[in-house]
Amino acid sequence: MQERELTGRLRSFFGRQPGLVVPIGDDAAVVRPTGGDVALCCDPVISGVHFEASAPLRLVGRKAVNRNLSDLAAMGAKPRWLLCSVVLPRSMSSADLWELLRGVRGASAAASAAVIGGDVAVSDGPLSVHISAFGCAPKQPLRRNLLQVGDTLHVTGSVGGAIDGHHLRFRPALREGAWLADQDAVRAAMDVSDGLAIDLETMLQASGGLGALLDAPAIPIRAAARRLAGGDRAAALRRALHDGEDYCLLFGVRRGGRLDHGGPLTARARRPIGRVVAEPGITLRAGGRMWRVAVDGYQHEVGR
Amino acid sequence: MQERELTGRLRSFFGRQPGLVVPIGDDAAVVRPTGGDVALCCDPVISGVHFEASAPLRLVGRKAVNRNLSDLAAMGAKPRWLLCSVVLPRSMSSADLWELLRGVRGASAAASAAVIGGDVAVSDGPLSVHISAFGCAPKQPLRRNLLQVGDTLHVTGSVGGAIDGHHLRFRPALREGAWLADQDAVRAAMDVSDGLAIDLETMLQASGGLGALLDAPAIPIRAAARRLAGGDRAAALRRALHDGEDYCLLFGVRRGGRLDHGGPLTARARRPIGRVVAEPGITLRAGGRMWRVAVDGYQHEVGR
Repeated sequence: MQERELTGRLRSFFGRQPGLVVPIGDDAAVVRPTGGDVALCCDPVISGVHFEASAPLRLVGRKAVNRNLSDLAAMGAKPRWLLCSVVLPRSMSSADLWELLRGVRGASAAASAAVIGGDVAVSDGPLSVHISAFGCAPKQPLRRNLLQVGDTLHVTGSVGGAIDGHHLRFRPALREGAWLADQDAVRAAMDVSDGLAIDLETMLQASGGLGALLDAPAIPIRAAARRLAGGDRAAALRRALHDGEDYCLLFGVRRGGRLDHGGPLTARARRPIGRVVAEPGITLRAGGRMWRVAVDGYQHEVGR
Repeated sequence: MQERELTGRLRSFFGRQPGLVVPIGDDAAVVRPTGGDVALCCDPVISGVHFEASAPLRLVGRKAVNRNLSDLAAMGAKPRWLLCSVVLPRSMSSADLWELLRGVRGASAAASAAVIGGDVAVSDGPLSVHISAFGCAPKQPLRRNLLQVGDTLHVTGSVGGAIDGHHLRFRPALREGAWLADQDAVRAAMDVSDGLAIDLETMLQASGGLGALLDAPAIPIRAAARRLAGGDRAAALRRALHDGEDYCLLFGVRRGGRLDHGGPLTARARRPIGRVVAEPGITLRAGGRMWRVAVDGYQHEVGR
């Protein structure tokens, strides 16, 4: 298909959007922000790294969007506009491209965000989809680096075993993030993409080199992690800590702080999985036993 | 290098920037726009498509940025923030990455824009660099689709032969674009990336299916195009029309319209290369001879 014809089809495929001054098809899109700060991020998905070559293309498009929306969620931001750049392998058909774009459009629409521009190129490499996301930031964006000793640690969803398909099908925690950004008691947040342990370690190091003491039985392990561990409880816990691609939010609440009643959090997310301590490193506790969690050099299965 | 260490190095490499509320290293960057509309675009550069594998990495980084800044220039927008996502082949060293990023940083700084976020991934494919650019749009962004019969056509620079290295080293026409957006007499503009003929055809079709009559001797042919054509004047003209990657601006001025004195345009850019006519298609004229330019199906050498 000629680029000009493609541009025309893309414009009608993604539709006209409110706040859009110049739509798809010019040198750049022009939007009218509603005021306030803007959150921006970009994260690619690449065949063989972030998804298997056999993954359904609609889910690949969906993941490409939702991975970025999860980053916006972790700031408490509300998604508005997306740019979508696709690099196709030569073997892919036009029908494949549209199937992928249906996934992109569906995930955008589910978050009331609009695809307003992008690019389609062909290369000898693997399929990759590069989404850039722009959202309205809250007055106090959720930061990673503001944990303090005594904060309680929480997760908005269960962790582990995302390779079962969750990593393609998850919904970004947008409502949770926006709500948390509005809570005075919430000190810091991050989305769990690389794995609970390594992402927690990232928050602790960014917060000045702190540590955490986690209650192992309090960590909500996904059923898929238990299943993949074949009933081995220690193996299931390791999956919960290290598998990654959970795309729930990990957040810290200041000591004695209270979250408002109501809101999108589950009862589970209101119960802590542990707390921040002064000594660096992550320690697990179960019954009378305590042990350290190794976070360095870990490579999870699904990719990142 | 661990991702956490890389993030820390990237933050200091790209530096703190005015208007940046949350810098590199969180789930997303947060910026404070100064008001007004925002122009957004993204365009990748991929090894083997947009540059040769042998191209110096600093120039690859530079081109990745400037290709996008050229799109902002074509809207009359002023660049502010960039996201930079790099996909490295496994063979590339850390030193290679930093050399590439020096090119990214240099081109950003030259345009007073700031890299505020991004991603580095590794894949089995070719090197690719995905820049998303955000700029302040002018009150009246330069559109592609507003040409009318009788408008005179102009280019801000010479065309053809960009494969000589110009496609890596060009400077985006940011001052020209901002100035043109401020001129009442300017009706439409676009940057010349795919080739003067095909890009003009895109503008003409977007403007409702118009045509153009070009004065062949008025087209400013780059010296490299003449050199590559080995002194063959017809071949040099074909290069000027079709090579692409010129990254000058093509713009239309309404019949009888006047451009202000002063400003960044060369005397050359003030002289028309032709005019818009009602009959679709592009016709060239030289001496008493006239001939049609074929624009469809053309594949230029440098890639796009």
